[in-house]
Amino acid sequence: MAEVQQSLRTRAEEFFRSLQNEITGALEVLDGGGAKFFQETWQRPGGGGGRTRILSEGSIFEKAGVNFSAVHGEAADSTDDNTLTFFATGVSLVLHPRSPKIPTVHANFRYFEQSDRQAWFGGGMDLTPYYLDEEDAVHFHRTIKTACDKHDSGYYPRFKKWCDEYFYIKHRAESRGIGGIFFDYLTGTNHREQEQLFAFVQDAGHAFLPAYVPIVEKHHSEAYTEHEKHWQLLRRGRYVEFNLVYDRGTRFGLETNGRIESILMSLPTVARWEYDVHPALGSPEAALEEVLKQPRDWAI
Amino acid sequence: MAEVQQSLRTRAEEFFRSLQNEITGALEVLDGGGAKFFQETWQRPGGGGGRTRILSEGSIFEKAGVNFSAVHGEAADSTDDNTLTFFATGVSLVLHPRSPKIPTVHANFRYFEQSDRQAWFGGGMDLTPYYLDEEDAVHFHRTIKTACDKHDSGYYPRFKKWCDEYFYIKHRAESRGIGGIFFDYLTGTNHREQEQLFAFVQDAGHAFLPAYVPIVEKHHSEAYTEHEKHWQLLRRGRYVEFNLVYDRGTRFGLETNGRIESILMSLPTVARWEYDVHPALGSPEAALEEVLKQPRDWAI
Repeated sequence: MAEVQQSLRTRAEEFFRSLQNEITGALEVLDGGGAKFFQETWQRPGGGGGRTRILSEGSIFEKAGVNFSAVHGEAADSTDDNTLTFFATGVSLVLHPRSPKIPTVHANFRYFEQSDRQAWFGGGMDLTPYYLDEEDAVHFHRTIKTACDKHDSGYYPRFKKWCDEYFYIKHRAESRGIGGIFFDYLTGTNHREQEQLFAFVQDAGHAFLPAYVPIVEKHHSEAYTEHEKHWQLLRRGRYVEFNLVYDRGTRFGLETNGRIESILMSLPTVARWEYDVHPALGSPEAALEEVLKQPRDWAI
Repeated sequence: MAEVQQSLRTRAEEFFRSLQNEITGALEVLDGGGAKFFQETWQRPGGGGGRTRILSEGSIFEKAGVNFSAVHGEAADSTDDNTLTFFATGVSLVLHPRSPKIPTVHANFRYFEQSDRQAWFGGGMDLTPYYLDEEDAVHFHRTIKTACDKHDSGYYPRFKKWCDEYFYIKHRAESRGIGGIFFDYLTGTNHREQEQLFAFVQDAGHAFLPAYVPIVEKHHSEAYTEHEKHWQLLRRGRYVEFNLVYDRGTRFGLETNGRIESILMSLPTVARWEYDVHPALGSPEAALEEVLKQPRDWAI
């Protein structure tokens, strides 16, 4: 068992490292080649470290962060006096485009081990448009569903629902975006099952670029107005509200002295708050609000 | 006892209502008379209501919110199966000036009753400059200290320390601003002590305008650069972080289905986040950061 876990741990770390390379490479090409990811490598005092990659003020992306980390160490067990060892590796990304016609996107894939007792995968990806394009929503969800269905036809419906429930801004009674998938604590009872989960996570990770890039390519040369940009900034305020108030990863990081700049790289460059704004009835802004209040099935 | 509490409750509500009038009236004059506070009155389904007053896009204030509320109702007691009645009244304000040369300010004064068992006062005010002006800091703190000293020479040092501890952004290891006072659960054991506390809260409330207005008057015609405005927006990001992650009133409101627009009126119109920004050594921005990392005694 120990040998198998070691091997899975190493291969998961290698996969996430290469996924970061694959994604940042593709995003640099997509952005037009002018702006490059700036890389900062860091060490965690208790063990391990990471590579934070940030692209700022690109032609398409106002702020794009793609983090890889592989950390390990000891953590106090709250249920008894034992010390647990843990290992966590993964990729986490948030892309904030300049244009309100291009959705913001978030993705995260991770592998976690706790002592030799547990090992699990988590992750997902979700889309946060400022204007609803139903064709985009269908494309995003269908691409993800295809990756899921290859492994288990129950995955997509279960993880889609989990995503809608997780990315919910309770105090606004609305979702952060139009969803995608979210999964956590995926664990197998034997070697074969763990390998199957790893294969699924790899396919989900590889589905990110085909799910998102065509949406960017479709909209990146569209013109937009000041009014549309203004609406984007108000919606980004909601993104900040979700991440600081509810996001478990963010809150865990803030409470445990995580690497603040890597954690808060998910926040948009600029966000706005105005008192009690309501879009005009029948406007495209109201259409977005409606779908955020009532999640739909996109991949049917 | 019941009669006395009723009377204190009524007089506290009346005081906070008139304090809101006094402050919004003075701020409209200060802003130059062009922009006016927009008022929204609201009812709380469980009992009571409030008056939210917002001034947006003024000549001095980009966003100024001054709320009054007096709410009552029933709340479940977590320690037993009884239902408690509560009454809460107060004024809460946040002023975000347009110019980075003028500090943001927050103040709050409140009175709370729980069944007939407890009644207490809370409140305070604190200053969040974007550039440190030591003369302003001394003026703000001394004005508050004078109001405190009239009642108890132990108040200012105790409430100044409480303020530094409360408005602390743990994950940034820095204070939100240069402090002021913060107090809560101030309760007397008899009628005379309760009246003394009410008298203190009234003097503290009346100290707000003389503590803050001269600072606005001193700086409002100063020119500022794009660089200074940019720094203000980054610092406002920290203000958002404090309010959404730590502020007890905000988090309580979000968790208990409070009136969201009134609660989040404290957020600035615009805030920025950039990756790992550090001001140049010896710059005015670095001087501000230094005082936020190491609170000082201003009223000595």
